Amino acid sequence: MAGKQIGKQSIQFENPPIISGAASIVGEKEGEGPYGKYFDVIKKDPKLGADSWEEAEGKLQEEAANLAIRHAGLTKKDIRYMVAGDLLGQLMASSFGLIQMDIPLFGIYGACSTMGESLGIASMIIDGGFAENAIAITSSHFASAEKQFRFPLGYGNQRPKAATWTVTGSGAIVLRKSVRKDELQEKKDTDQISKSAKQEKGKVKIKGITTGKIIDYGVKDNMNMGACMAPAAGEVITQNMIDFGFQPEYYDKIITGDLGKVGKDIVLDYIKAKGYDIKKQYMDCGIEIYGEDQNTQAGGSGCGCSAVMLAGYILKQLESGAWKRVLFVPTGALISQISFNEGNSVPGIAHGVILERL
Amino acid sequence: MAGKQIGKQSIQFENPPIISGAASIVGEKEGEGPYGKYFDVIKKDPKLGADSWEEAEGKLQEEAANLAIRHAGLTKKDIRYMVAGDLLGQLMASSFGLIQMDIPLFGIYGACSTMGESLGIASMIIDGGFAENAIAITSSHFASAEKQFRFPLGYGNQRPKAATWTVTGSGAIVLRKSVRKDELQEKKDTDQISKSAKQEKGKVKIKGITTGKIIDYGVKDNMNMGACMAPAAGEVITQNMIDFGFQPEYYDKIITGDLGKVGKDIVLDYIKAKGYDIKKQYMDCGIEIYGEDQNTQAGGSGCGCSAVMLAGYILKQLESGAWKRVLFVPTGALISQISFNEGNSVPGIAHGVILERL
Repeated sequence: MAGKQIGKQSIQFENPPIISGAASIVGEKEGEGPYGKYFDVIKKDPKLGADSWEEAEGKLQEEAANLAIRHAGLTKKDIRYMVAGDLLGQLMASSFGLIQMDIPLFGIYGACSTMGESLGIASMIIDGGFAENAIAITSSHFASAEKQFRFPLGYGNQRPKAATWTVTGSGAIVLRKSVRKDELQEKKDTDQISKSAKQEKGKVKIKGITTGKIIDYGVKDNMNMGACMAPAAGEVITQNMIDFGFQPEYYDKIITGDLGKVGKDIVLDYIKAKGYDIKKQYMDCGIEIYGEDQNTQAGGSGCGCSAVMLAGYILKQLESGAWKRVLFVPTGALISQISFNEGNSVPGIAHGVILERL
Repeated sequence: MAGKQIGKQSIQFENPPIISGAASIVGEKEGEGPYGKYFDVIKKDPKLGADSWEEAEGKLQEEAANLAIRHAGLTKKDIRYMVAGDLLGQLMASSFGLIQMDIPLFGIYGACSTMGESLGIASMIIDGGFAENAIAITSSHFASAEKQFRFPLGYGNQRPKAATWTVTGSGAIVLRKSVRKDELQEKKDTDQISKSAKQEKGKVKIKGITTGKIIDYGVKDNMNMGACMAPAAGEVITQNMIDFGFQPEYYDKIITGDLGKVGKDIVLDYIKAKGYDIKKQYMDCGIEIYGEDQNTQAGGSGCGCSAVMLAGYILKQLESGAWKRVLFVPTGALISQISFNEGNSVPGIAHGVILERL
């Protein structure tokens, strides 16, 4: 038997997948921000030599995937599944960028929550025994996202204060099967148990997940995504603590994807009203990724935002021992060009992933 | 331990998930076709009382999901995960149609192969022990798809012979955990073993899956999707037989999603060149769903096509005992409005699902 269902919406993995490799590739603006030194590659050319923004974003995914696999000490042939997605219609960055990978693909879409969804599915694949190694990949690109969701770049529109800036970047995470302690214990192989414990020391495991529902509070402003997503983040963080019986102190950090400055206030209030105060642990990748002087209004966004912050910064904090446990909660606003033009609201979704240092 | 990895791209489930409920909802044209009597609900109003085509498609998903859950003798609260998707940018039909379901969601995109991807992920979730019940849902709608990918309906463009007609419809499949024979055998509970075998008699299980890669042969014609998808279907069908060591005769039917008349010839030739002749077993949902007199050129398409044929017809053939084993292979063309306008090719992907009557 693999995973254990916990409470209403959570899973605790029996043999938690281990993060064996990670990679982050970002654009110049992200490289100039306060976390620039943590990213593996900074691209000076926003088009990466491609003919279109979409193709450029696909190239980010391909390069991040290849680098993460190399960091894991593996080759493409070792990876049984890719779980990948992006913000573009019909996942254009993954659909085209990952062709050369030649690995079975599950394409997924959770707006900017996609890295949470991807890690969730990939973890179930590994814990369930369906693969030894799988890779989770997401990306976003400022120019392809503006084109898809807002205005052509050349139009030079003004941005309201609640607007976020789509991160140009791709993060990839390779998961591998952990040594099955139950099997070793059955065999009473204490040597192997202590050997594998040594090998895994300092690595980060996916201890569990809390999968989100679509939450719609009727917010209709595509320049205020933080407000659209905050209730979904609030729900999933609260449910995580209810399902596992944790208090906020269990985590060193509770990190949302891209709520930005407006969403931050809403999510903290929302969770406080539910009886949990996460102010001390709270961090938002979107608020962090750019400096105050970078003119990005409410912060960064896009499914590359939480992905590169995870692969670039968060994992390093865990591996170094600065943090022991993180609840990583990428947040998504389910908006499309068409739904916006038709006057629909922007529902939110968020997926929680428990990261723990071994 | 749950699933067993078979060959390069396949899984054989240790405790195969059982299809406990299914539902198919279609539009009027599909209802008038040769399989009309097999579908659960035929909608006379293509807009379902909604304000937009996208909202109408969302309503199809919601109704199919609720009906499938009822057919399984369950309520929404019993379903731990939805794995759902559609063809629209940012999965607009799922993102909006499934809000009221209030169930954790994995949004997925595999173009018209989405039902294969959805069943694959949902099966791993069940076999891995992560849920007792999960639901796979996909949809397409003629009007929302034409608007998204081709021309506005009011433009009245001519359709070439290779064009397919997007099916208006949604199919939903509820999967449940099978009785774990390994645990019963361990307990030597022979009474329970024979009791559960009786209960499951005539039900359909998901025996295994073969997950596809993106295959790009450089075809650029969005009016000839069959040619774009056929190589991906050919690859996955061949790989299924290689991985499991099956011959075509192992299956009563090998059923692709929506290759249509042009794709059919290509896929049969492709697989023959690999050493397998599947002509006798071959069937395509897209060719079947409309009658010759319905003026749909090469046949039906869309991720509703294979979904409603599965929920409406294929499962009934299996449950009645007319067929014992089916390889179900939904086929997807990874095209977006933007990728087409930028002159890109249309890569294909296909996912194989082995259905077997108990």
